[in-house]
Amino acid sequence: MPLEFWFDFASTYSYIAAMRIEALCGAKGVPLTWRPMQLGPIFALQGWKTSPFVLNPQRGAYMWRDMERLTAKFGLPWQRPSSFPRVATLAARVAAAYDGAPWLGDFVRASFAAAFGSDADLNDRSLVRSLLASLDLDAADVLDAASTPPRSTRLRANTERAIALGVFGAPTCTVDGELFWGEEALDDAIAWAETRSERSLSN
Amino acid sequence: MPLEFWFDFASTYSYIAAMRIEALCGAKGVPLTWRPMQLGPIFALQGWKTSPFVLNPQRGAYMWRDMERLTAKFGLPWQRPSSFPRVATLAARVAAAYDGAPWLGDFVRASFAAAFGSDADLNDRSLVRSLLASLDLDAADVLDAASTPPRSTRLRANTERAIALGVFGAPTCTVDGELFWGEEALDDAIAWAETRSERSLSN
Repeated sequence: MPLEFWFDFASTYSYIAAMRIEALCGAKGVPLTWRPMQLGPIFALQGWKTSPFVLNPQRGAYMWRDMERLTAKFGLPWQRPSSFPRVATLAARVAAAYDGAPWLGDFVRASFAAAFGSDADLNDRSLVRSLLASLDLDAADVLDAASTPPRSTRLRANTERAIALGVFGAPTCTVDGELFWGEEALDDAIAWAETRSERSLSN
Repeated sequence: MPLEFWFDFASTYSYIAAMRIEALCGAKGVPLTWRPMQLGPIFALQGWKTSPFVLNPQRGAYMWRDMERLTAKFGLPWQRPSSFPRVATLAARVAAAYDGAPWLGDFVRASFAAAFGSDADLNDRSLVRSLLASLDLDAADVLDAASTPPRSTRLRANTERAIALGVFGAPTCTVDGELFWGEEALDDAIAWAETRSERSLSN
């Protein structure tokens, strides 16, 4: 049973999860689908005009400390961004546009590592171009296609489908309609996908 | 290095964590201190008049589904309470009053199992009396002492100390000033306590 991984490039906990999810799914034979989306409209539906980590300073302070601990625990690069939450629409549009591309996981991880490892702006065209080029892609071609219909509409469609599924934060894994919210829920989500696969195999 | 476990008897995720924390700490040789507190004043400082699970219906719906999954995962009794959040001051006052008592862990677990396994009201005097009696305690004596200073002041003191430590939700584990929020953070908190102990031993 496939696992859909819903994330926003501006989300710190999405970063931790995105760096790990493909290897975790691969180890269990669970097919992974990347689902870049935008938290803005999702938070707006909850009455929030920005990240809950900004709205609630105590939660925010905890999150920043947690990032230090989690990146150390998983051996991930870490530099607290100079701006938060940072608009990351361009990278998200590319990732959504190239749903299913064999290089998508590498692009997602390179983007997140740039954003949270070296304070990069994922809405900056030259930065995204260099990330694509580092993957041996024709960056100009990819960026053009990502900003042209029908590919350019996919990010918004992802966000709308996330809302329809009940996604209220990121990262979220969905498996056959079941939601698993938070970077700490990855193992449970993968186990759920495995169990569902066994059931459908035995039916 | 000791681990302090901050919880509210009305909190669903505190239930999951409270049922597991003593065994988890015991397995690693980490001393555990139970810290019953009240989330009401802690939420009020964040501008909330009730549980965030009530204020945010999407988060609430997710939490109830998560409880079904988590109680199944850990083999814990589960019956969704007919009222939420439910005032649980009496049980909390007893638990705080008897800080360090050898029966405290059993009382905490019996109380939580009653609240979330059979819809019991932990603010009901006859219910708390029966929980204490089931532990072979003189229930009338314990209840009298718990409502008399200085023991009766300990619940409020716990809540005030939690606020001073930066606790903003439950369950929270604290180890030497470091906060770990959420039932999924138990393992990290215990690992932190172990590491700190090794460092102080080697100094």
